[in-house]
Amino acid sequence: MEGVMDLQTILNNITKADEKFYKKAQEKTLQLIMPTLAMGILHDISYRLCAISASLEPKTDKRAVFVMAADHGVVEEKISAFDSIVTCEMIKAFIRGVATISVLSRQNNCTTIVVDVGSKCNIEQKDLIGNSKFIVKKIKNGTNNMLKEPAMSKDQAIASIMAGFEIAHNEINSNKLNLIATGDMGIGNTTPASAIGCVITKNPPQAMTGKGTGITQQMLYHKISIIEQAIEKHKPNPDDPIDILSKVGGIEIAAIAGVILAASYSKVPVLVDGLISTAAALIAYKLNPLTLDYMFIAHKSKEPGHAKMIEYLGLAPILQLDMRLGEGTGAVLAMPIVEAASRIITEVATFDGANVSKSRL
Amino acid sequence: MEGVMDLQTILNNITKADEKFYKKAQEKTLQLIMPTLAMGILHDISYRLCAISASLEPKTDKRAVFVMAADHGVVEEKISAFDSIVTCEMIKAFIRGVATISVLSRQNNCTTIVVDVGSKCNIEQKDLIGNSKFIVKKIKNGTNNMLKEPAMSKDQAIASIMAGFEIAHNEINSNKLNLIATGDMGIGNTTPASAIGCVITKNPPQAMTGKGTGITQQMLYHKISIIEQAIEKHKPNPDDPIDILSKVGGIEIAAIAGVILAASYSKVPVLVDGLISTAAALIAYKLNPLTLDYMFIAHKSKEPGHAKMIEYLGLAPILQLDMRLGEGTGAVLAMPIVEAASRIITEVATFDGANVSKSRL
Repeated sequence: MEGVMDLQTILNNITKADEKFYKKAQEKTLQLIMPTLAMGILHDISYRLCAISASLEPKTDKRAVFVMAADHGVVEEKISAFDSIVTCEMIKAFIRGVATISVLSRQNNCTTIVVDVGSKCNIEQKDLIGNSKFIVKKIKNGTNNMLKEPAMSKDQAIASIMAGFEIAHNEINSNKLNLIATGDMGIGNTTPASAIGCVITKNPPQAMTGKGTGITQQMLYHKISIIEQAIEKHKPNPDDPIDILSKVGGIEIAAIAGVILAASYSKVPVLVDGLISTAAALIAYKLNPLTLDYMFIAHKSKEPGHAKMIEYLGLAPILQLDMRLGEGTGAVLAMPIVEAASRIITEVATFDGANVSKSRL
Repeated sequence: MEGVMDLQTILNNITKADEKFYKKAQEKTLQLIMPTLAMGILHDISYRLCAISASLEPKTDKRAVFVMAADHGVVEEKISAFDSIVTCEMIKAFIRGVATISVLSRQNNCTTIVVDVGSKCNIEQKDLIGNSKFIVKKIKNGTNNMLKEPAMSKDQAIASIMAGFEIAHNEINSNKLNLIATGDMGIGNTTPASAIGCVITKNPPQAMTGKGTGITQQMLYHKISIIEQAIEKHKPNPDDPIDILSKVGGIEIAAIAGVILAASYSKVPVLVDGLISTAAALIAYKLNPLTLDYMFIAHKSKEPGHAKMIEYLGLAPILQLDMRLGEGTGAVLAMPIVEAASRIITEVATFDGANVSKSRL
């Protein structure tokens, strides 16, 4: 990217992954010393990695997870088990490298890049001693309460997307990243994520909404009602992702959509985490459906709405471990599976090369 | 182990994993900075690793996969798409480090230990230049055709188990292994594995038998009929695992059961691969149900019988990727997930330690 780009220019410059390499990968896979397609879903991942990288030897060794953090005005409606202050406390834990995403990133040779795009806190310089990259690019100190007014302006929604795009684009280019992941932190953010899911997939709030960080059944009914009221009040246009984000979205959700755009723009595979990240994936998909070529749904969350979002996108999740943490944990946990897919097509011998007899059939 | 042990002594010395540490692990997990049990199935893995190792900081860094290889007399009934010679060819590919299990083991810092317990081939010394350990401990040059006679004698079945036990026991002790995996190579071995599954889980052959390496529908009917006839002819006793192995088993399946016994005996977690390894797990379970404490079902295979075996054992598979290769590939692929579980309970901060506020509820 030279200088500053606008969103429309980015969207216009996202192109399909390379279909020729997808087909070549299919052909090569049939020659590997194993029964036909015996590694199941891993082969589909291999094909897609080959198409994305336009190579039969895709690499996945240069990694980062982008953990986008922001706060949510709707928390004042008591839809979460935690207070907004926990967003700040967790950002500090990420920076210090003691949170779950920090641990999994260390395990998987993945850089954690924590971005405060819209929290209510001011993380001070003294907190910056840690092993994660920390970037502050704040669009707004938390969204407005969507029950009473739009979560943010349309300009802020676009600025949030651009913040995610620019940070990820810069990291991808500076560090030649070949596998990235999305993550989120934001107390209350299953409420906007579920709302976005409802608007785009046209499922009702009671089908799309879950207990998030662990609310009571009573609070769940209340949360569903808040989402219903917010959608009813603002009537977001299902075909206008900026309208949806501004009315019932979140700053970090918009920024994650920007990360997905950056991956698509630079042709890098992006592992999409759970409910929050997949809500962002819906936004990215609505902005440009070609982004689908670059997305991998890392896991199926325990949140009921996630399965419906995945179904809408038509992508199969890699892991199914009943997780519901966010932070990008599911996305980073899936990295070794994606690496395995890249190594299988690159490193496994062929029948001819290894003198192994083929099937008689 | 001092000197030579017999099977009964081994079975008598397998004891339960440590329930105190299971409970301690549950308590510690509730203090980690995340919503209650937000990492889903990973927590169950953590608890079990803590119980097995009697520690709240379980380690999984010293790894090996035991790939047990043997041939099957029943292949002459044309139940496989491949000829027996492929068992030899694949052993050579393992030794040279070019097979799928070799690639995945390299990725996951896991030593591949290939054991010829009963192939029809004589792998020559010149083939031993490779990056896998290769051990020949041959009980028999392939089993007999189970359609016509018992696959092997009871003494050979016991010797096969002991071969697997002794090799794994020695490797575990010499290299202080803390995570092992099982794998198999043996053209035709889905037939004995399915037969064992039928006898122990009491499912009929048509529910338990799949296309293995990729036979036609016509051949599948034939394979089912062969399994039915073999069981009808020999009437293996469902409560006598040695009887089952000798009549409708396989040498490598018995040896894998021995590997599982070695893990249980030395209190090391063992990742059980797909259909063949899980048939061996059924045998190990029947020999001593306490082995269940040490087994993890790495993945759910595409072979229909595998789900029924897992259900019988009451264990949840970690991965579900429609794989059906064997070699230990599913088991090694699950290693990073098990490592993640071990690191989460060890490394993630607690609410008090990290100054993160707990749920208000």
